Amino acid sequence: MYYYRMQAASASTVSQDQRRPGRRPGDSGTRDAVLAAAQRQFAELGYDRTTMRSVAAEAGVDQKLVGYFFGSKQRLFVAATTLPFDAAAALPAILGGDPAALGERVARFVVGILEDADAGSRIIGLIRAAAAEPEAARMVRDLLTRELWARGAELLRADQPELRISLVASELIGLIMARYVIGAEPLASLSPEAVVAAIAPALQRLLAGPAPGRLDKTP
Amino acid sequence: MYYYRMQAASASTVSQDQRRPGRRPGDSGTRDAVLAAAQRQFAELGYDRTTMRSVAAEAGVDQKLVGYFFGSKQRLFVAATTLPFDAAAALPAILGGDPAALGERVARFVVGILEDADAGSRIIGLIRAAAAEPEAARMVRDLLTRELWARGAELLRADQPELRISLVASELIGLIMARYVIGAEPLASLSPEAVVAAIAPALQRLLAGPAPGRLDKTP
Repeated sequence: MYYYRMQAASASTVSQDQRRPGRRPGDSGTRDAVLAAAQRQFAELGYDRTTMRSVAAEAGVDQKLVGYFFGSKQRLFVAATTLPFDAAAALPAILGGDPAALGERVARFVVGILEDADAGSRIIGLIRAAAAEPEAARMVRDLLTRELWARGAELLRADQPELRISLVASELIGLIMARYVIGAEPLASLSPEAVVAAIAPALQRLLAGPAPGRLDKTP
Repeated sequence: MYYYRMQAASASTVSQDQRRPGRRPGDSGTRDAVLAAAQRQFAELGYDRTTMRSVAAEAGVDQKLVGYFFGSKQRLFVAATTLPFDAAAALPAILGGDPAALGERVARFVVGILEDADAGSRIIGLIRAAAAEPEAARMVRDLLTRELWARGAELLRADQPELRISLVASELIGLIMARYVIGAEPLASLSPEAVVAAIAPALQRLLAGPAPGRLDKTP
């Protein structure tokens, strides 16, 4: 709260600055105050009840300034959202270890995150935001590339690691959309353990199987 | 155009009716006129340039009536969108035939649709709309269940056909999001033929392999 008040004081000056055309409004402190307010509101009120207006009010800045910095609610959400786990710490443990259980480890970790109310809604929110508009999609791609995909490709000991990781991403984004967003049955009603069992073999094949892109006819 | 004008004439009466509280505004003819206008505009102007207002104007009805019938632009889009292929005709050919090439046939068909500018944007638009709000997600789920998933499960000669089909749906929705919406690389830059080769083995396993949900450790 101290931080918010401090920023609110400096932000009112900035808001006046905006009236001068051609001058870039705000400073990184103001932007940070908006982000901090957005983070708190998205977490506590949820996506639907958080608005550009309510975030601006909490940060003590003009609503137009939030629009200037972030363009849309979706982009503000993506900018304010971090992954609900420490990828730098988690990935080596998941992608290292017994190669025969790679797919199962990835499946178990991801399903664990998605089934957690808090962590799951953050990840599902990112994917929904990406679907809303191209600029939010680009931001989500940058976030996932930086945090997960580039690190994953570096850690994976197999040929074509980047392609494998992007296919794993495709698989997992499909799970998020089909089970948690669209609700495709019976996938949407499976127990978490059954989901792990259902997706682990495909992940295992993508991560440790033959090079992706070879058309073989054996199931 | 004849249809539109005819509906527009009857719709203006309906719009007046709406002022009487408690009375259900419109009839199925008005609803159809709005849908026809939406279909034309989404196809010709694209999603972003089509608005509830522009559809109402073309259908000759009050914008509030469009809101009354469809609630949001996403829901109007889903209601106005049909699959860009005849599923009843296509599915038997794809899911029948040589079981050893099931995955490849599904992959080739789906990638063909998605790479077609017109057909692809309709399918991708449906998935994006589903991500936008729960009610649109429900409509997309109903459409896909009715047109594709129920039919697919009936045609598939394997145990647990519904679960297999929902996992195939998950896989393909992931492809749509990762390649066409989020742009995960290198998947997003693969040639269509390389995408077919990359996803066919997983589809083959889901459609004709061991029962999904069994954790085996062989890739």
